[in-house]
Amino acid sequence: MAQTFVEKLQASQERRQSWLCVGLDPSADQMPDGVDLTTFGKAIVDATAEFACAFKPNLMFYLAYGPEGFQALQATIAHVPDDIPVILDAKFGDISLTAGYYARAAFDVLGADAVTVTPYVGMDAVTPLLGYENRMVFVLVRSSNTTGNDFQLWPSDKAPLFRFVTAQLNTLAHQHPDQIGIVVSATQPRDLARIRSWAPALPFLIPGLGVQQGDLATAVEHGVTRHGLGPVIGVARAIIYASQGADFAEAAHQAGEEWVTRIREVRAQVLAGEFGQGKRIKLE
Amino acid sequence: MAQTFVEKLQASQERRQSWLCVGLDPSADQMPDGVDLTTFGKAIVDATAEFACAFKPNLMFYLAYGPEGFQALQATIAHVPDDIPVILDAKFGDISLTAGYYARAAFDVLGADAVTVTPYVGMDAVTPLLGYENRMVFVLVRSSNTTGNDFQLWPSDKAPLFRFVTAQLNTLAHQHPDQIGIVVSATQPRDLARIRSWAPALPFLIPGLGVQQGDLATAVEHGVTRHGLGPVIGVARAIIYASQGADFAEAAHQAGEEWVTRIREVRAQVLAGEFGQGKRIKLE
Repeated sequence: MAQTFVEKLQASQERRQSWLCVGLDPSADQMPDGVDLTTFGKAIVDATAEFACAFKPNLMFYLAYGPEGFQALQATIAHVPDDIPVILDAKFGDISLTAGYYARAAFDVLGADAVTVTPYVGMDAVTPLLGYENRMVFVLVRSSNTTGNDFQLWPSDKAPLFRFVTAQLNTLAHQHPDQIGIVVSATQPRDLARIRSWAPALPFLIPGLGVQQGDLATAVEHGVTRHGLGPVIGVARAIIYASQGADFAEAAHQAGEEWVTRIREVRAQVLAGEFGQGKRIKLE
Repeated sequence: MAQTFVEKLQASQERRQSWLCVGLDPSADQMPDGVDLTTFGKAIVDATAEFACAFKPNLMFYLAYGPEGFQALQATIAHVPDDIPVILDAKFGDISLTAGYYARAAFDVLGADAVTVTPYVGMDAVTPLLGYENRMVFVLVRSSNTTGNDFQLWPSDKAPLFRFVTAQLNTLAHQHPDQIGIVVSATQPRDLARIRSWAPALPFLIPGLGVQQGDLATAVEHGVTRHGLGPVIGVARAIIYASQGADFAEAAHQAGEEWVTRIREVRAQVLAGEFGQGKRIKLE
């Protein structure tokens, strides 16, 4: 039987001693002069594969380049070493047939190992994707932005909406083990820790580090599942645009190494119990 | 100054005496034998342009065909007569830069007049799209599916979440007139009527008719804005797959004519006050 996403991710994390996920967000405004999209993507992959437990290309950045962008995305994903999982970040949120076509586009056409989903339409955005047993769906639970608070924290008598979303994902994960993960931003450290306490077994995809300056220590401390799977910590612009000159690949390599080193250091501090005196997130 | 989306839609609705929007959801499983995607799309457009106040291609159906599908989508949109607006249905929901690239892909690359957005991340999914002043953003407020109820009806002390979403859209529409619309399914007639009462000025995009058998009478009665703009009533599979044989275009033409006739009849009944005795939606 083929490897599940979780098995593939865990092997990649162990082999590289890394929880770093390199985000591929190529923007026409920031590309090095004279470098085309496919060349750029492949060069970033080559430069950072040593440190990246996963890659996360962002669909809309590629679609903004037209059909050629879609081809470049296909070529870039195909260029990722076989032992590194690819998470297609598309933040898609539709139901039934349409969600089924999202699965086809992401898994069959693009060859991704996982996708992201936004859940305003409920679990019907997720279930049509679960027919692909070795693929993963990361569902957005807490985003980094301020206006996201309006909806995600929408309070009922009992709990904010995002707690209920998390509970639904737990239920779904019982039926589909190793296929459901959670996207939670590192800019919401308290909620990240709370979500971990509600969903101890679900893998985390954590954006909001790098340019957005989220809380790495909390991401590391609470990102791990009870089975020991590390979080997928996404950093994009701080790595891929470390330089916008001809040395962009070398700069990305160096930035990738710095990031993975930082994550390892924080991890060692957490394991040694050194981290967090007076800072550790308290859960009510 | 160029026409706004609302002006273009209103002119199209008046010229065709139609509120019908033909949804383009081309599925490899249901395509007529030997017809390629671009040929199919153009033939459906030609066959139904007489009746369609708008067209609504569904992004994921096209992406499932790979880069060629994206090209076919571009070609199909370019083939739509200039006086008929095109709504790209992508149910996308991400923030800031990524949402900006959604705008580029939809408006610049594909030439759509409007897009759909899913709002779990709040109004930050919408605002980056509003820089394109003559384009429109339809935000999903109530979807047709059962698990959507879980989140959209999430109750606070005061109101379900979808009421708050509607209020936010009203506020945004004050700053950006003619750029904000609402997606509400015809399978939720009571909520459709409630949303109209909360947002009297916002244009409605109404899926859930056709195969999903939503309530056309309510869509017609409550779909109109206080400025008299009619709803955009989406019907896809019931028209584009009216026949899966070589006569698919003729069958789509006939189905389009039947749908627009039904909508006109119900509209005439509503205007004459004939409709709804004992059935009219009561608002609390």
